[in-house]
Amino acid sequence: MIVYGRNAVREALRGPRAVARVWALARAAREPWLEAATVTVCGTAAELASLCGSEDHQGVCADVAEFSYADAPALLDRPDPLIVALDQVQDPQNLGAIARTAECAGATGLVIGERRSAEVTAAVCKASAGAVEHLPVARVRNLSDFLGEAKAQGCWCHGAAADAPTAPHAVDLTGSAVLVLGSEGKGLRPRVVASCDTLIALPLLGRIESLNVGAAAAALLYEAVRQRAPAAGT
Amino acid sequence: MIVYGRNAVREALRGPRAVARVWALARAAREPWLEAATVTVCGTAAELASLCGSEDHQGVCADVAEFSYADAPALLDRPDPLIVALDQVQDPQNLGAIARTAECAGATGLVIGERRSAEVTAAVCKASAGAVEHLPVARVRNLSDFLGEAKAQGCWCHGAAADAPTAPHAVDLTGSAVLVLGSEGKGLRPRVVASCDTLIALPLLGRIESLNVGAAAAALLYEAVRQRAPAAGT
Repeated sequence: MIVYGRNAVREALRGPRAVARVWALARAAREPWLEAATVTVCGTAAELASLCGSEDHQGVCADVAEFSYADAPALLDRPDPLIVALDQVQDPQNLGAIARTAECAGATGLVIGERRSAEVTAAVCKASAGAVEHLPVARVRNLSDFLGEAKAQGCWCHGAAADAPTAPHAVDLTGSAVLVLGSEGKGLRPRVVASCDTLIALPLLGRIESLNVGAAAAALLYEAVRQRAPAAGT
Repeated sequence: MIVYGRNAVREALRGPRAVARVWALARAAREPWLEAATVTVCGTAAELASLCGSEDHQGVCADVAEFSYADAPALLDRPDPLIVALDQVQDPQNLGAIARTAECAGATGLVIGERRSAEVTAAVCKASAGAVEHLPVARVRNLSDFLGEAKAQGCWCHGAAADAPTAPHAVDLTGSAVLVLGSEGKGLRPRVVASCDTLIALPLLGRIESLNVGAAAAALLYEAVRQRAPAAGT
């Protein structure tokens, strides 16, 4: 697949995927982080845009191996995993943004459903600033079944539901935890809700009805980071 | 100005701005939240797109009064204000996303600079899901001077700087507080850094170098919400 954008290409070069070829505009080709790569200089931005099928290339794109999805059960085998599970989040920008935040927050991985979900496309690589090169992303046939397996392995599954009475700081996000977020507008499906141990909600203190799912993920992940930090509570 | 998008138009109708006229495609015009409005039905999506200058209208747009910026000193007069100040955040999507999260988190307002900053355009209204109709947004000539005034009034100014050694939960975000965030890539300008009381950083536990500014704002704002909640720490 062709990935594009500076961070997306840069992290592909730093990550495990094989990179067959890099194209860049003359100016981008001189950047230090491209020094180790063999770069084909591209004459015009339009030529680059036709290569990657997007105007959003920031002067660089690369032909990389297809994205390798992680094995979901293997994520559960890690010590004290912190996993983000997304229920039918269809917007590539949101999926990419959440992947980026999850990688920054040190999450073990991201789990998405096979159907009605954005998958890891070049647009998602770009939106994630290349985070998907380092963050395991697993696809599962059925998200509720995955949450069942997670619970069987001792994970607590915390579903984000706008009308839940419990704030994230009032629950224990240390140990093995899955944070489950749904699509904006629709939220979590009933079967997914039923598969969660607890439902939590970020307080909504204004007049707007909902947070963006990416903002909610950031607030929840960094609440987990706070609780899991060695000096938490001090 | 013409605002477009379902949430942007809906919140404009609920907020203080005068709405002169609403246009919608037939299907959108029948939605319950448009019941109280006088709606001109628009024949085609293309007609609507030419009215609002964007394809991103979701079937509805409105002619509303120009956006009224708030008075920055008045924000400081509120009891225990929680203010978000942005240093040269130029991306309308980021400004909109931060406004949305700030409104949800019950922030007192948002302060932006007059130069090299995104301002409240229709794209920002859309990206904020209409939050800018309810959240005071002030423009100041000089952000450092504003922070100086804030400190003179007893506010603590917390600057987000990726290399700061202090986590947000280790500082006191109760009382009067300004959270200062810079643009991605560039961060805070030196004079803005010098105007902050403390520098804080969300831990980066992966390989990616930085959080998106909208994700950072969400994590910081909800850490403030946690600390300011009546039952915080229990």
